[in-house]
Amino acid sequence: MASEAELIAALSTIFSRRSGPGIEVGIGDDGAVLLPPNAKQIAVADMAVEGVHFRRNWSSLAQIGGKITAANLADIFAMGAEPTYLLVTAGLPQDFSVAEIIELAEGIQNEADLVGAQVVGGDLSASPSIVLSITALGQSSQPILRSGARDGDAVFVSALPGWSAAGLACLTSGASHAKAVAAHLKPTVDYALARQLAVAGINSLCDISDGLISETHHLSDASQVRFVLEPDLLAASPDFAELSAIATSLGIDVWRWICGGGEDHLFLGTTSDPSSLPSGAMVIGRVVSGRGVELVGKSDFEKVGFSHFQ
Amino acid sequence: MASEAELIAALSTIFSRRSGPGIEVGIGDDGAVLLPPNAKQIAVADMAVEGVHFRRNWSSLAQIGGKITAANLADIFAMGAEPTYLLVTAGLPQDFSVAEIIELAEGIQNEADLVGAQVVGGDLSASPSIVLSITALGQSSQPILRSGARDGDAVFVSALPGWSAAGLACLTSGASHAKAVAAHLKPTVDYALARQLAVAGINSLCDISDGLISETHHLSDASQVRFVLEPDLLAASPDFAELSAIATSLGIDVWRWICGGGEDHLFLGTTSDPSSLPSGAMVIGRVVSGRGVELVGKSDFEKVGFSHFQ
Repeated sequence: MASEAELIAALSTIFSRRSGPGIEVGIGDDGAVLLPPNAKQIAVADMAVEGVHFRRNWSSLAQIGGKITAANLADIFAMGAEPTYLLVTAGLPQDFSVAEIIELAEGIQNEADLVGAQVVGGDLSASPSIVLSITALGQSSQPILRSGARDGDAVFVSALPGWSAAGLACLTSGASHAKAVAAHLKPTVDYALARQLAVAGINSLCDISDGLISETHHLSDASQVRFVLEPDLLAASPDFAELSAIATSLGIDVWRWICGGGEDHLFLGTTSDPSSLPSGAMVIGRVVSGRGVELVGKSDFEKVGFSHFQ
Repeated sequence: MASEAELIAALSTIFSRRSGPGIEVGIGDDGAVLLPPNAKQIAVADMAVEGVHFRRNWSSLAQIGGKITAANLADIFAMGAEPTYLLVTAGLPQDFSVAEIIELAEGIQNEADLVGAQVVGGDLSASPSIVLSITALGQSSQPILRSGARDGDAVFVSALPGWSAAGLACLTSGASHAKAVAAHLKPTVDYALARQLAVAGINSLCDISDGLISETHHLSDASQVRFVLEPDLLAASPDFAELSAIATSLGIDVWRWICGGGEDHLFLGTTSDPSSLPSGAMVIGRVVSGRGVELVGKSDFEKVGFSHFQ
């Protein structure tokens, strides 16, 4: 095994590919020194645990690194913000090779490169199984909160949810469906659309990391309004037929995936001007006065959620 | 087990005790919204893993939470900076109770309270064993780097290193020595002295998380100078006799603990004006031209280090 110093040197090389003008001191001191943002600062953190969020026999290390990075970046975009810096801590088995650490690190930095973010610090520890934790920093002059939904808003999603859940079901059952499996192993976050949402004048926004219904409840609670979602509008998605066919082949009700599937890292929000939504976003319901979430004609799915601690 | 929403509500209460004026949105949205610092921003991250950094049969959950928080805060102070915000991710076993999570959270916030820092975000995940990761943010108008040591500087430490290593040896061997054991289970970082160091005009600084010799090598490498440490100056510490007695009773050479013991989170640095050092800091050597680290008369200990990946 390499010494920690050799590892840090290797990682510094990977993580310095895009050193930006805001980084005064990057990896190698007790901490990074960054110039302060010109706008409000956004900070998010996510952890991914082997056996819970990923399995090594399903995912490459590059996919594992990319997936948790995407989850963090999506949280930054879900605030209507632009990501800037990442700090990464990793617990890795003692027999992990330098090549494996480099593959994981490149998976992280390659995803960060998609949005111009930079890893500026972190920590390595021994651990019985792989654990990754990322803090992402970002900035926004006008963050978009969960609490901004208003009576009369249109509700939108950035795409049809459920593909990651479908991929997990395929992997678990041994079924093969490349698009669904890929969506589970390393979701493709639509960063371009996220950037359009940040300037579309929308009222509320979050990312769908824990499932559509669960996140809609979060918006409802934070904004103290009622969300009425129309399954027909979700079913109008061009992806719906393909997702339904996979579900049918596995004997699963597709609405379980659409309503409860997590980890797609799509964006859910509300706007008073649906005509200003970027192409790709689709209106799926409306905000009314009251509280709670209604799924018209499918009340069985109104409570579908996902929590590691339920 | 409580739902994730209930847990987040409980944690929000603990972590909102000291909500500061800089926090526009704290826990509960996709991310925290913070006003930008008026100075340069410092960012550090540390991970602690059950069985590697702590054992539940030795430490209370409050001690475990306090210890990793102290490690992060020490890194911020080691940059000559003032901590502001923390983001905490925790991987916890499925059977963890709400009371246990609250004890862990209070251990974290109680340590953060010592310096006025605030937890503003994080993530919870299931995990086979406990894993904690903290990112600390801070600020400084004039960060103190590892690279600032100059030929002719005096080398200082904030106290005698080795107490955490002594405590670990006591716990491992079944010996009882309350001061040493306490230093291992939850080191007491001298935050007041750290704040004095930040304004003492010193040239270089780091915290001793991986052992005195190892960290001195880091300063030497970063500053491209040679460090000459005098064991006699370390032995002049008022703590030396007590630490030596513990070592002798366990049949261990005390210099192994002093030179190689990690996790004390003391501060090591250099200054061109030793008379400006705060009370408590002690000069232990000098900086000369060249490279490397010399321990006068004890060359056997010049390579003593500590790395999870060696």
